[in-house]
Amino acid sequence: MENLKSRIENRRELFLGELTEFLEMHSVSAEGSDPEGFRACAEWVRGKLENAGAKAQLLETAGHPVVYAEIGSGERTLLLYGHYDVQPPDPLDLWETEPFTPTIKDGTLYARGVADDKGDVMSRIQALRLYIEEEEQGEHGNLPFKLKFFIEGEEEIGSPNLALFVRENAELLEADACLWEGSLRDEHGRPEICCGTKGMAYVELRAKGADHDLHSMFGGIAPNPVWRLVQALRTIKDENGEITLDGLMELADEPSEKDLAAMRSIPFDESSLKRAWGVDAFDRDLSGEDALAEYLLKPTANIAGIQSGYTGPGSKTIVPGEAFVKMDFRLVSGQSPEPVVGLIREHLDRRGFTDIEVVDLHGVEAAKTPVDSPVVEQAVAAWRDVGQNEAVVYPTIGGSGPTALIATELGIPTVMTGSVANLNSRIHSPNESIELDDYFETVAYFVRFFRRFGSR
Amino acid sequence: MENLKSRIENRRELFLGELTEFLEMHSVSAEGSDPEGFRACAEWVRGKLENAGAKAQLLETAGHPVVYAEIGSGERTLLLYGHYDVQPPDPLDLWETEPFTPTIKDGTLYARGVADDKGDVMSRIQALRLYIEEEEQGEHGNLPFKLKFFIEGEEEIGSPNLALFVRENAELLEADACLWEGSLRDEHGRPEICCGTKGMAYVELRAKGADHDLHSMFGGIAPNPVWRLVQALRTIKDENGEITLDGLMELADEPSEKDLAAMRSIPFDESSLKRAWGVDAFDRDLSGEDALAEYLLKPTANIAGIQSGYTGPGSKTIVPGEAFVKMDFRLVSGQSPEPVVGLIREHLDRRGFTDIEVVDLHGVEAAKTPVDSPVVEQAVAAWRDVGQNEAVVYPTIGGSGPTALIATELGIPTVMTGSVANLNSRIHSPNESIELDDYFETVAYFVRFFRRFGSR
Repeated sequence: MENLKSRIENRRELFLGELTEFLEMHSVSAEGSDPEGFRACAEWVRGKLENAGAKAQLLETAGHPVVYAEIGSGERTLLLYGHYDVQPPDPLDLWETEPFTPTIKDGTLYARGVADDKGDVMSRIQALRLYIEEEEQGEHGNLPFKLKFFIEGEEEIGSPNLALFVRENAELLEADACLWEGSLRDEHGRPEICCGTKGMAYVELRAKGADHDLHSMFGGIAPNPVWRLVQALRTIKDENGEITLDGLMELADEPSEKDLAAMRSIPFDESSLKRAWGVDAFDRDLSGEDALAEYLLKPTANIAGIQSGYTGPGSKTIVPGEAFVKMDFRLVSGQSPEPVVGLIREHLDRRGFTDIEVVDLHGVEAAKTPVDSPVVEQAVAAWRDVGQNEAVVYPTIGGSGPTALIATELGIPTVMTGSVANLNSRIHSPNESIELDDYFETVAYFVRFFRRFGSR
Repeated sequence: MENLKSRIENRRELFLGELTEFLEMHSVSAEGSDPEGFRACAEWVRGKLENAGAKAQLLETAGHPVVYAEIGSGERTLLLYGHYDVQPPDPLDLWETEPFTPTIKDGTLYARGVADDKGDVMSRIQALRLYIEEEEQGEHGNLPFKLKFFIEGEEEIGSPNLALFVRENAELLEADACLWEGSLRDEHGRPEICCGTKGMAYVELRAKGADHDLHSMFGGIAPNPVWRLVQALRTIKDENGEITLDGLMELADEPSEKDLAAMRSIPFDESSLKRAWGVDAFDRDLSGEDALAEYLLKPTANIAGIQSGYTGPGSKTIVPGEAFVKMDFRLVSGQSPEPVVGLIREHLDRRGFTDIEVVDLHGVEAAKTPVDSPVVEQAVAAWRDVGQNEAVVYPTIGGSGPTALIATELGIPTVMTGSVANLNSRIHSPNESIELDDYFETVAYFVRFFRRFGSR
């Protein structure tokens, strides 16, 4: 390890120089960005992979191209997922540095995309080079396993072409394990290893009253679409805040004993979370294991937004003509989004709310890799190799992502591990940053992970 | 009557010319309007009253001046309330004519303020002149009763200085009856005579979650302020939509037998109202007398607006940090706004919603004049004098206004009658209009009303 550390230290300027060059590229995937500059960024990544010895190419999709690369041979294959696109930098006036001019202050590197996901992508490519150099690897490119890079350019706009790409390239993507982006270092610097994501059904419920706003002198007899939504919502949670959507819980797979054990081992710092949120209590006064189980292992029925009628200052007296509420139901294994949207429709119909429109806006499948999969053990061990003895294994996380495409559809054990980001990285926000120490530790981590994966 | 009609017909051009001049003045009371032009409008009205033989003056308030005038003498006094200010004309692009260039098309006169309230004010002044001319009145200005005009300039911004003005000028405003602005001709051309207004308590309920929006991966444990509002709202109406606010109904005075009888005489055209709103049914499937009683004689708990979280297109996954709902409670006699806001606070506290803030935004007292008051009888009879045999007496209306200042505080029987407006007048909207025939009928109506009031 001391040797690896000094090898990284010697390349510090080189590695940071490469990362800086990557971060200076405006690869914003949201509409309106420069398509040529965007493609140049994909080309740049391809070049870096070629330069590391891999066979790399751009694979076209209906949107931005995927950078795909392969190197090595052997019975086992490791797939690495990442993305080279970044969020828009807005609001610009909240940035304390230029978002596309990477800036180091006191060991912290600020730039759009540094934590999500360019730092991850770069650290993995640099780790590959270091791994190849290690004596035991012999010839350039002669890895004892096959390593595949799969780096898309549309993650920040919801990966609209990813499902089709994965399905059409199932053979190309075949692997024994996949490392995904997206984990963090927690508030105590402990790296997370996440073995699953929740699914999601995102719906909008729409209610209508009169075909225009009415004077509220008619409030006693005019149908009010907000009250209509309130009446519908009260059937979705009871007065204690428990979800009462017909059939939702019945679909959920029970968490395994191992998942529960992993969950109980998580050092869940309730009070620091509450402090960070500025609240005295969690919803329903949940605490301890109950709160953690609710956060990680149970579905939600969240209201993400609601709007109707007059919302300016002071008083305006109307009966609104229409109202909507946006809800995301985070789902666990067993609860697919499409059937859940069906449940919502039936639940409302059964109670006479046939007038309320249910608009299906977005669906994501839950994904789950067993906590005792070999790749999880390797991930924990590789963290230990670089001196991180307290990596925390999460059976699943509260968030969602397209991991089911790989984990479920292709059946490849998939974990999130080794991100350069931490809890304060302000992902998607102004002043996105990472700690340089974390960055170089992550490079070392992937070198060790590759060794463990290759030597198995 | 034929004689009166032809006298009006002879003055048609003169009367329309005066009204046009009045309508051309930009007396928009909302912020940003031209104070000098505004005062010039008040002066113009004062001049018209002087010209009709009254002693007229501008009385200063903290805001725009009140035009006050007196004429005649005798034991009985009639007070006429109106306003010379108008709503802003926005949105301008929806006007088919220039809002301050009165335009006649097919017998309809379009202009901002023509229906609310310059047409009313002008018709009353012109009626006074015709009444004075009538032979039996003898000398110019020698009315057999005292007539007072009380025309304010801040009605369209909520009459912020009216209460103080009325209290400080209680003696000046003393009268045996008051005619207020604001009635309409219904869809069949029948004039309304309204004997009361509902009160109102307008509140905003505010709930807080975390001190910033959170990623909805935390939806299972983060306090959600929209759900919090839903939980509170479900205690304010039950699942059938009946109001369940502790103590609200107990405060309400029972409607009198005469009010109920008046209500039952109203030709309530349910299906045309539903058609105008584009709905198949009223709230709670109310119909017939139940719907009418709910509309006119019962309090409401209306939601006028609600907002929280993400309300743009598509899906954004957050737990909002805060939420608010705006509610107007229309109140009946006995339910004063201040105690009602207190009831809301206590109702929520009693159920543990001490975290929900109740912001008192606006309060108006209900007002009630008995349907068998002499002024109501005179109003009905005067309509009959001009050939309107089906004037409809409303014991109260669904809307609110500052009538309690006169009706309750000064104890003056107050009714709304004789407006030039009809149901399609688009009050406060683009293309505000009146029918010219209605205008001249209203002039005749006031001549006859004055005669009845004076000859009693």
